[in-house]
Amino acid sequence: MNSRRISPRAKAAPAVPSPWRASRERLRDREVKREAVIRAAAREFNLKGYHNTSLDDIAARLEVTKPTVYYYVTSKEQLLFECFVAGVEQIRAAFREVRDLAVPARERLNAVLRHYGEAVASEFGWCMVRAEDQDLPPAMSRHIKTLKSEIDHGIRRLIKEGVQDGSIASCDPKMTAFALAGALNWIAHWYREDRSLTGAEIADAFVTVFEGGLRPRSTPQGSVRERTRRRVRSAAVR
Amino acid sequence: MNSRRISPRAKAAPAVPSPWRASRERLRDREVKREAVIRAAAREFNLKGYHNTSLDDIAARLEVTKPTVYYYVTSKEQLLFECFVAGVEQIRAAFREVRDLAVPARERLNAVLRHYGEAVASEFGWCMVRAEDQDLPPAMSRHIKTLKSEIDHGIRRLIKEGVQDGSIASCDPKMTAFALAGALNWIAHWYREDRSLTGAEIADAFVTVFEGGLRPRSTPQGSVRERTRRRVRSAAVR
Repeated sequence: MNSRRISPRAKAAPAVPSPWRASRERLRDREVKREAVIRAAAREFNLKGYHNTSLDDIAARLEVTKPTVYYYVTSKEQLLFECFVAGVEQIRAAFREVRDLAVPARERLNAVLRHYGEAVASEFGWCMVRAEDQDLPPAMSRHIKTLKSEIDHGIRRLIKEGVQDGSIASCDPKMTAFALAGALNWIAHWYREDRSLTGAEIADAFVTVFEGGLRPRSTPQGSVRERTRRRVRSAAVR
Repeated sequence: MNSRRISPRAKAAPAVPSPWRASRERLRDREVKREAVIRAAAREFNLKGYHNTSLDDIAARLEVTKPTVYYYVTSKEQLLFECFVAGVEQIRAAFREVRDLAVPARERLNAVLRHYGEAVASEFGWCMVRAEDQDLPPAMSRHIKTLKSEIDHGIRRLIKEGVQDGSIASCDPKMTAFALAGALNWIAHWYREDRSLTGAEIADAFVTVFEGGLRPRSTPQGSVRERTRRRVRSAAVR
């Protein structure tokens, strides 16, 4: 924006600034600042927990006054809600991105799971997985539940499509979706203390585990498994 | 115990009750009642959350007075800690059970993961996965961290053993352990609302997902995967 103002053309014949453009820029500026407030809130919630964080703390971190914060959000509850939305929006965007890709469903699912993992490892992770427990107003809680359910059903749908197109092994879509999302959600619980990998590296490592499973691929299916299962049984009744 | 008192032999020649046995029985009786207090606390914490539950609530649920509760535990913090221990003890017992089984490590790991899943789906699940966040006294928090770390390292050890004995595919033991435990821990977040399966059924379903992974077993390794990966890339740059 600044570069446009000092461009040679502007110097030669300074245009009358369009009031519409100025208004758009003000709006965009407000949006950028609002995002900064939400991001600062997410960091404070991460650091001290939601109930131990005040709007004063968030204002202090941004070096502004509390009324300035109120110019962008109406309450601490709304801030938490916005942090939640900022996190899940990354996952919703991933669903949109893969929707029209002409690739097997497992590849589309993996792409979504990678974005999911990165979102949970981002500053919004804690808010994404814990917002629902913080006694938010009923309307916000309902909205959170709806968005979570939408993501859950999106994952189940990709699993079902994968089973149909043969890219995913036959499975229980609901339990599989719960297992995958649970593993990813849990990143928010340990990632603050153990940051030895980036969010993208963790997401990649998790997708590798999900894809391949524990059982080695080279083993003829069933043989070792059945044999050891019998041995476990006989050992257990000893 | 009651059946022993009314057995024919006891009727024929009533023995002088041993003071030692009485003392042992009193101790056992105290232990049983203490367990009931801990179980009632777990249920209240599940229902209303830790901070919204008072010792009065727990006493009311047990139909006893608050001083009676204090006879078994010294504080609400200790109650939460005991609930945590009751949950993780089921997992620790599973590690002990499988330790000497002469079966491949993957089968031993699966057995531990099944018990883990059942524990998280039990009334102690919420306390197991959330006790650490509740601002407990430092000594309790340290103990909780130690027990969690012990379980984490137990899982990693079984994964490493499985990779060595060929029963588990080559993988990153730390990330794999985090993914497995995370999926299981997350059960505590959704199981209260969706109880369509038993804890054992969920644990079984999860172990099936972990074992097999998403990729179908019948697909020749790498072929479809590599092909679709190329297609995702080319689709992404469009």
